[in-house]
Amino acid sequence: MERVDIAIVGTGPAGLEAAITAKIRNKTVLLFGSRILTTKLNGTHQIHNYLGFPAVSGQALAESFAEHLSQMGIEITEKRINAIYAMGDYFALQSGDDMFEAKSVIMATGVVTSKPLPGEDALVGRGVSYCATCDAPLYRGKKVIVVGYHEKEEEEAAFLSEVADVTYVPVYKGETHLPDAVHVVREKPQSIEKTDEGMVLVTDQGRLSASGIFVLRESIAPGQLVPGLETEGPHVKVSRDMSTSLPGCFACGDIAGLPYQYIKAAGEGNVAALSAVHYLDTMKKA
Amino acid sequence: MERVDIAIVGTGPAGLEAAITAKIRNKTVLLFGSRILTTKLNGTHQIHNYLGFPAVSGQALAESFAEHLSQMGIEITEKRINAIYAMGDYFALQSGDDMFEAKSVIMATGVVTSKPLPGEDALVGRGVSYCATCDAPLYRGKKVIVVGYHEKEEEEAAFLSEVADVTYVPVYKGETHLPDAVHVVREKPQSIEKTDEGMVLVTDQGRLSASGIFVLRESIAPGQLVPGLETEGPHVKVSRDMSTSLPGCFACGDIAGLPYQYIKAAGEGNVAALSAVHYLDTMKKA
Repeated sequence: MERVDIAIVGTGPAGLEAAITAKIRNKTVLLFGSRILTTKLNGTHQIHNYLGFPAVSGQALAESFAEHLSQMGIEITEKRINAIYAMGDYFALQSGDDMFEAKSVIMATGVVTSKPLPGEDALVGRGVSYCATCDAPLYRGKKVIVVGYHEKEEEEAAFLSEVADVTYVPVYKGETHLPDAVHVVREKPQSIEKTDEGMVLVTDQGRLSASGIFVLRESIAPGQLVPGLETEGPHVKVSRDMSTSLPGCFACGDIAGLPYQYIKAAGEGNVAALSAVHYLDTMKKA
Repeated sequence: MERVDIAIVGTGPAGLEAAITAKIRNKTVLLFGSRILTTKLNGTHQIHNYLGFPAVSGQALAESFAEHLSQMGIEITEKRINAIYAMGDYFALQSGDDMFEAKSVIMATGVVTSKPLPGEDALVGRGVSYCATCDAPLYRGKKVIVVGYHEKEEEEAAFLSEVADVTYVPVYKGETHLPDAVHVVREKPQSIEKTDEGMVLVTDQGRLSASGIFVLRESIAPGQLVPGLETEGPHVKVSRDMSTSLPGCFACGDIAGLPYQYIKAAGEGNVAALSAVHYLDTMKKA
């Protein structure tokens, strides 16, 4: 497998600007994320403070970004990265059964806006999973609960229903579009417990039991994504050059701290990419 | 005189984005700088890494910025700020004989790309001046030398020639457009000396004598602009929230450090403005 210079995780303004800057500096790039850019950006009505675009709709801004990427020949790899491991002189990025390698990493995954459910953090890997593709084989023929924070998680639930007995708990409004085999339960998740019989999702209306619980959100907490990374609350700890506590790993945009603003995110993406380029140059000399 | 909430010094991407953000947050703003935006931006051929504008000319980008400002009703005050004084709970900004007051300040003046001439730093206020308007009265009927780093300094030289005998030394190519009374000397400045007879500009071709020497550049070093400000080489020392060593004073863009990039500057302008808004809110409560 080819080891790229820079893997960029996230396709909001920070990740896109980082990809553009890295490409201009002739680095090989893998850009992971959603092809429709961020859901958040598309959902925003109007943006007034992205210099150069007076009173622009989120949709129009997203289209300008997509056009910029397209003109520069940058492709988005539509994979969800579940974990990033620092291997010394490179990083291994896991997406389900796929592994990717990169000499440096730029995290631009946004910030987790929903707090973990009480009990969730402690039970990750012990009955709680964030990755349907990775952990589906563990639950063949068993009962699982999928807590979906966005309608695009329905795809994951549908995939899981091919091997397991799925109860889907949507944490959003609107209709669901799922195979008949999936049992949809509209209850509000409160906490997660582990008992002698298995896992329990406590809701506002009762207790749902299963062998495993999948919690699917757009972003996962940075410390979970990159084991060993120094964090500050929901953010990655960064210096002014967007470097993190792990050499070769950079962060930008919302994940790197407040304020949550498009132009701030884009500016940081530029800095993160140039810092990654500098890191690669230094590696080469060593 | 009205004391505004935020004075922004500089009309590059950092200063413009700061002004837009401050206006959106309903703060009163004074934006000081050149109306044609930065000379640097207009002179750039093509920019590839300002997300949303693929392969844009510096001219076209500057026009988009101007349009954004105009749509938001933000005016530029075409004054050169010579000094900013921290007065405790407000700042006094000096521009020649004019004084302005602001509760907080955002420095976005860019970085000084030309080094001071040998001898210059030590002689500021002792025969070397950065401000024609301020110091013209000191040299009535006397001989002065004006070292101009940009053709727009010709205006200052012309103004000075109304009261003094001006020798103009342009540090740029191209024709000069000056009153006949101004003596233009095309020599390369090397250093500045003070003798018993007065000031001497040493050039590659000889020694020019005068009572005073005006050195006119687009930007002046941040430590000279704001007495007491902590600097790091040519940059202002800032935290991640763009705050400086002086409470209420923020910095963004090139003056806040590398890399010198438009999108990075704009992003920092956004952060500086939001930090200034937070500072103003905190002041109000105190």
